[in-house]
Amino acid sequence: MGRLVTIRTIDWEGSIPGRVRLVDQTALPGEFRILTCESSEDVWKAIRRLSVRGAPAIGVAGALGTMLAIQGADEEELWERLDDAVEYLATARPTAADLFWALDRMRKAGESLRGQPAGEVKEGLLREALSILNEDRARCHAIGRHGSRLLNDGDTVLTHCNAGAFAATEYGTALGVIFRAVEEGKRIKVIAGETRPLLQGTRITAFELKQAGIPVTIICDSAAGGVLQRKMAQAILVGADRIASNGDVANKIGTYTLSVLAREHGVPFYVAAPTSTFDLSLANGAKIPIEERPPEEITHGTEGRLAPEGVSAFNPAFDVTPAGNISAIITERGVIERPDRERIRSHFAEAANPVPPSS
Amino acid sequence: MGRLVTIRTIDWEGSIPGRVRLVDQTALPGEFRILTCESSEDVWKAIRRLSVRGAPAIGVAGALGTMLAIQGADEEELWERLDDAVEYLATARPTAADLFWALDRMRKAGESLRGQPAGEVKEGLLREALSILNEDRARCHAIGRHGSRLLNDGDTVLTHCNAGAFAATEYGTALGVIFRAVEEGKRIKVIAGETRPLLQGTRITAFELKQAGIPVTIICDSAAGGVLQRKMAQAILVGADRIASNGDVANKIGTYTLSVLAREHGVPFYVAAPTSTFDLSLANGAKIPIEERPPEEITHGTEGRLAPEGVSAFNPAFDVTPAGNISAIITERGVIERPDRERIRSHFAEAANPVPPSS
Repeated sequence: MGRLVTIRTIDWEGSIPGRVRLVDQTALPGEFRILTCESSEDVWKAIRRLSVRGAPAIGVAGALGTMLAIQGADEEELWERLDDAVEYLATARPTAADLFWALDRMRKAGESLRGQPAGEVKEGLLREALSILNEDRARCHAIGRHGSRLLNDGDTVLTHCNAGAFAATEYGTALGVIFRAVEEGKRIKVIAGETRPLLQGTRITAFELKQAGIPVTIICDSAAGGVLQRKMAQAILVGADRIASNGDVANKIGTYTLSVLAREHGVPFYVAAPTSTFDLSLANGAKIPIEERPPEEITHGTEGRLAPEGVSAFNPAFDVTPAGNISAIITERGVIERPDRERIRSHFAEAANPVPPSS
Repeated sequence: MGRLVTIRTIDWEGSIPGRVRLVDQTALPGEFRILTCESSEDVWKAIRRLSVRGAPAIGVAGALGTMLAIQGADEEELWERLDDAVEYLATARPTAADLFWALDRMRKAGESLRGQPAGEVKEGLLREALSILNEDRARCHAIGRHGSRLLNDGDTVLTHCNAGAFAATEYGTALGVIFRAVEEGKRIKVIAGETRPLLQGTRITAFELKQAGIPVTIICDSAAGGVLQRKMAQAILVGADRIASNGDVANKIGTYTLSVLAREHGVPFYVAAPTSTFDLSLANGAKIPIEERPPEEITHGTEGRLAPEGVSAFNPAFDVTPAGNISAIITERGVIERPDRERIRSHFAEAANPVPPSS
């Protein structure tokens, strides 16, 4: 079984002090530009302008950004800086659960180190941040292993936005499932929705799949219905930004529409996401805050205004797919078929086995 | 009841010889550029590159283009030129029924003039072409009158692509319904899907509505599901490129998806089109040829390549909406509720009353 080469998209450079290095996704695919972040402000801006994006990747960036905030602090400033950084980085984007999950892990790691000398606290926090970074890689591979059994040899999979290496640290969630299926020898083709307004499908998903030698065809998001009418795809597979306790999934705008079309055409609709994307405090998806991004992402192109002056645009970055439209959610722990509150509770209650053994 | 100013988008200039003048829609909204066509080749190219687009407008352009082909012919060349022009112009784009309908009218008008001197044949053909041009205006206003009763004061209407003045000669079909409702004093807002890949919603529909003072908000096509989840629209209203005898409607790619979402959310889904858009020779929509346009419309932006080298795109210009998803089709003759083969047959069989009296 061959292993596909995928990309490490975010990393910590050095020890203490160190720096965050990440691939600037706004420049893809034309340019493979590395962005170096020296401060938590640098990381906040990188998240906000989507240089780093995708729920798991944002979580990792948040953890590493916290380190940047505290690494230069002396004993006196340390705890205030940690609190401030956690609070500040949480404001970068509102929807992805993984950011809050990772920041919460950093805060709790700090608490467990209270009373230790500053140097040891910093080392402990770096260990935690690097755990978050490294666990992500292992989780993505586990998601791939669990999910690949849902795909059949010869399938064409429709995906949306980018839930690949660039949405995580490497390998990815939804694309991880596809990479794994291909590594197992299944012949898989992909149809990628271009994902307006910022074209993550065209720019990033197509880039990753091309690199991996997997056949990919781009469509306008609006063509998904026509694609299913022609029976051109046998499964739909996407990532997630936040999953409520009942299985409702917030993901890139357009995901909900795909789920309705999947039901209409009897095509399975799969969501791949680590358990850190679940927000069990929320009863359902109606409670998930949906980011609205600048209208100019729609009204303007790279060369200037597309729409007439004075015309407004409504630009929600995400929508919510009801659990009832979802065939299965794939996490690093396994597959939740026909997700609902009870099955999700069981999934989380099962003996903690966060990462299955690597093959 | 105020009448909104709308735009005359295509016209015949002079008599014989004359020229076709049309607004070059590829330059909108940044530039209001008039394109002058001196030959049927000029018209063919204008249709092919979408300088003139929208089924009724393409029909008018085809009729006027035929005139350009024959106006300089002598007695001997005339009939061959007419046949050639009709055949040639029919190859400009494959989906819109109105083009074939208008060319067929020109051919039949020619037949009825056989044996007359060339000058009289030309005059007869110009009269026919101008009838097609002028009837379009009247049909659009009739569609507006019939359709406006389907919209309620305070409604927000979701539309797709452009079925306005620029898709016809003035006023439009789907937008004609909205213009009329507003003229009758109803407060109507519009949400326009941007309509990838060529953004007719952002560039043309938003332009027309802004000119008319009707509030318009642009969304990414993929956001339509989210819009309906939020109950932001009370009706969906689109145009058509070809309608089969059972009521299946070919229209801009993305229309089918909207029809599925409309059913899912219990929102009415209306199609506005003149009777010339019907192709009663086709049993159903599966028989409608769907144009595939160049992949570069998706893989490239105005500044160059968006997708990685070597990545392909599937770019169907249209999709087919099954009659079962359509609440009503509005023509210049009236409204066909829950369209099916029988109701469409009756609609066409009723005493020929092509254009109701203007108010």
